[in-house]
Formats: sequence, structure tokens, C-alpha cells
Amino acid sequence: MKKHYTEILKAHALFSTLKEEQVEEIGKQCTLLSYAKGHTLFMQEDPASLAYIVVSGWVKLFRHTVNGEEYIVDVLPAGYLFGENAIFHGDSYSCGAEIAEDATLLSIPLAALKQHIDHTPGFAQHMLSHASRQQTAQERNKEHLVIQSAPQRIGCFLLQLAPKEAKEPVTLHLPYDKLLLAARLGMQRETLSRGLTTLQDATDITIQGATVNIPNLGKLTKYCCTACTSNYPCEE
Amino acid sequence: MKKHYTEILKAHALFSTLKEEQVEEIGKQCTLLSYAKGHTLFMQEDPASLAYIVVSGWVKLFRHTVNGEEYIVDVLPAGYLFGENAIFHGDSYSCGAEIAEDATLLSIPLAALKQHIDHTPGFAQHMLSHASRQQTAQERNKEHLVIQSAPQRIGCFLLQLAPKEAKEPVTLHLPYDKLLLAARLGMQRETLSRGLTTLQDATDITIQGATVNIPNLGKLTKYCCTACTSNYPCEE
Repeated sequence: MKKHYTEILKAHALFSTLKEEQVEEIGKQCTLLSYAKGHTLFMQEDPASLAYIVVSGWVKLFRHTVNGEEYIVDVLPAGYLFGENAIFHGDSYSCGAEIAEDATLLSIPLAALKQHIDHTPGFAQHMLSHASRQQTAQERNKEHLVIQSAPQRIGCFLLQLAPKEAKEPVTLHLPYDKLLLAARLGMQRETLSRGLTTLQDATDITIQGATVNIPNLGKLTKYCCTACTSNYPCEE
Repeated sequence: MKKHYTEILKAHALFSTLKEEQVEEIGKQCTLLSYAKGHTLFMQEDPASLAYIVVSGWVKLFRHTVNGEEYIVDVLPAGYLFGENAIFHGDSYSCGAEIAEDATLLSIPLAALKQHIDHTPGFAQHMLSHASRQQTAQERNKEHLVIQSAPQRIGCFLLQLAPKEAKEPVTLHLPYDKLLLAARLGMQRETLSRGLTTLQDATDITIQGATVNIPNLGKLTKYCCTACTSNYPCEE
């Protein structure tokens, strides 16, 4: 079973270049956890001891304004790491995390990451590259709020969900909660509905419930990525 | 003169905790450069060998969409470091940089930074903390595009320019180019004009040309920071 943990770790860019025995060492300290939709993993400013990789399902990251309004930082699908930044945030989480769709997570002790940052040659550089990639992705998300239309932002989100070497037709699964998806994309529920219709007409994708079918990736990237400063496929 | 460079470096969080002799060593490899408004320092994807600290003036960071549209990544005042991320971007700049108002810059060889990341105990961790702070600031900028009003975003930008221990009344200098400022804040020129009027009425600040006077910081923070997930003063 623990061997499986090693595979999950190695599939993430942060751990992919560590030596086999180093990943195994971290894997031994990990735990596989299952949670039902709605479960709160942690709140903003909670003391932090674990980072997580999403193995399946969806996780919502959020913060609250001083006024008490909820702001959706991100909605993460399988393959994403979160909570690791607590190391640089006084060992407390910089945002809250809630299970958005039934999920399985691999928990990684922050102490294990710190140990490697301090003592494994090259690991701090890997963390730096990881932080840099995250920063680029975030910069792009901010950029899209300014220069992309709502249908283009939705299309971009779909492209980010598609596997790198995807073969057409590509089938994707969205979180069921459309209000959450709209908030993640920085738009109202109605804007998302209208945007999905426009996007379907323009790019031949079809959406049924939470399942998206993309028959022509080229058409979708042409529609979305011309209003972006990066080329598809994005590096991160 | 080179002693002065050490002071500029030490004023930045990234170098503030290095040993005196280490900062002096980096300072020896730095150069102070003056540029006139409009000068292009580098373009996106140019090979990178230098990072810069803004000593005075303003620097515009930008990217171009595939369609050829310009997107303003940021407009940086004195005290800000840029170009250092090229280390994690294949030694090329991830965005272009242009002098937005006559500026003096301290150039730092990327090789010197790499040397310290690889060989100075703790420096990679400092870079990680720096990257993490930048990420938090950027996340907040993205958040503000979604949850703050235009006048609140303008007020937040002013608060970020104010010195940490500022005494009232606080006087700030904006870049003269209002179109640039509007783009940095993700709004149209007219929205900026209307927003400035609303902000002046609501918070007693006065704006004459490029000079802003803030008589009451508390009133300004109350107006802006209630629609934010962080408390003033922000950590970064």
C-alpha cells in the first residue's frame, strides 16, 4: 500500500526528481484519507502540520474578507498539492480548505518537507521551481480576469483539466456545484451559464451535467489562448 | 559608492538576513544604472543575466497576448526586485520591462544569486520565503479584481505605496501616466477617473496631478480593507 503512496508523490513535479529512496522515505510518513463532500479540512490561520495531494475528487480553497464574505481562492482537482505554503506562513494555513466533491487525499507531514528543504541537496531549489511555477499560473489567472472574456476563461479552465497528452475526443468531469465553479472563475452563476452556451456554440464542445466532451482541442485552444500571453500547452 | 549598494540590497527582505560580508560580496557585483522614461530594459523571453532593484522611478512589467495585445503585469515603485524569477524560467525573462518614469536601478547578476542559492546555507530558504510573499501578494491582487470595487482597488494601491510606519498626513507620488495606472489596476481609464473621485469623497484624500495626500490612514483602510481577506498592514 505504501508503495502506492510513492507513486502518487512521484507523479507530482515537486517530488519527481528526488531519488527513489528519498520519495520512499517521505511516502512512509504519508497517509491516505477519504472525505465526504462538505468536510472542512482546515480553516485560514489554523496551525498547520500537513500538506495534501488531491488523489481524487475536488478541494475548495477559500478565504474570508474582513466583512465576512467568502472568496474562492481555487478549486483543485486530482494531482494538485496544497497546504505546503504554511511552511512560509508561520506554520499556519494561509487559506481554508473544504472537500468540494467526495475526495481521497494523501497527507504529507510538513516536517518531512522541511527536513528535505534543510538537508537534501537540491530540494530547496525544487521547492523554488515549484513556487515559481505556481506564481506563473496565478499570474496568468489574474491576467485572464482582465483580458479574457467569460467563455474564454471557462474554456481555459477546461484546457487546464485536460491531460497533457490527451487524445480527442477528451472527456472531463467538472465539480457538480456550478456556483462554486463560477466563483473560482471570478464570475456570477448566470455569467457562467451564458458563457457555457457561447463556448459550446463556438468550439463544438458538449456539456451534459458535470461531464464535458471536447471533440476538437485545436478549436478550443484557438478560441481561448489567443487572448492569453502564454502558448498552449502552458508549462505549469 | 559600492557601500551604498550594500544598503540598497539590505533594505530588501531577500537580502536583509544575509551576513554583512555576504551582502558586501553581492554588492561588489552590482551596478547602479539610470534610465529615461520609455527605455525598454528587456523583452519577454529575452535571455536573462540580471535582476534589478528599483531605487527610484517606476518600472512597467508587461506581456503580450498571442493576439498582440499588451497586458500590464505590474508597475513597480522604489524598493521592488524584479527579473530574479528568470532563474526558474530557463534563464529567460518571463515578462518584458520598460521604464515608466525616469528611474535608477541597481542591477544584480543572476549568477550571484544562483551562487548563493547553491552554496550559502539558508539562502534558498530566504528565496522560498520571498517567493511565498510574492505569491500571497499576487493572490491578493487577483482576489481584489473579483471582490473589491474600483475605488477600493485604487485605495489599496495607495496603501501599498505608503511607508510602513507612515505618519499622517502621508504624501505619495503616482506615475504620471494614468492609462498605465488604470491598466495595472485592471480597469479602464474612465473607471480610474470616476474611482478617484469616489475615493476622494469617501476618504478625504486629495489628488493633485501625480501627488496624493492622505490625511487619515484609518479612514482609507476602513474603506478598502473590509473587502479584503487580509488585515492592514499587509505582511508583504
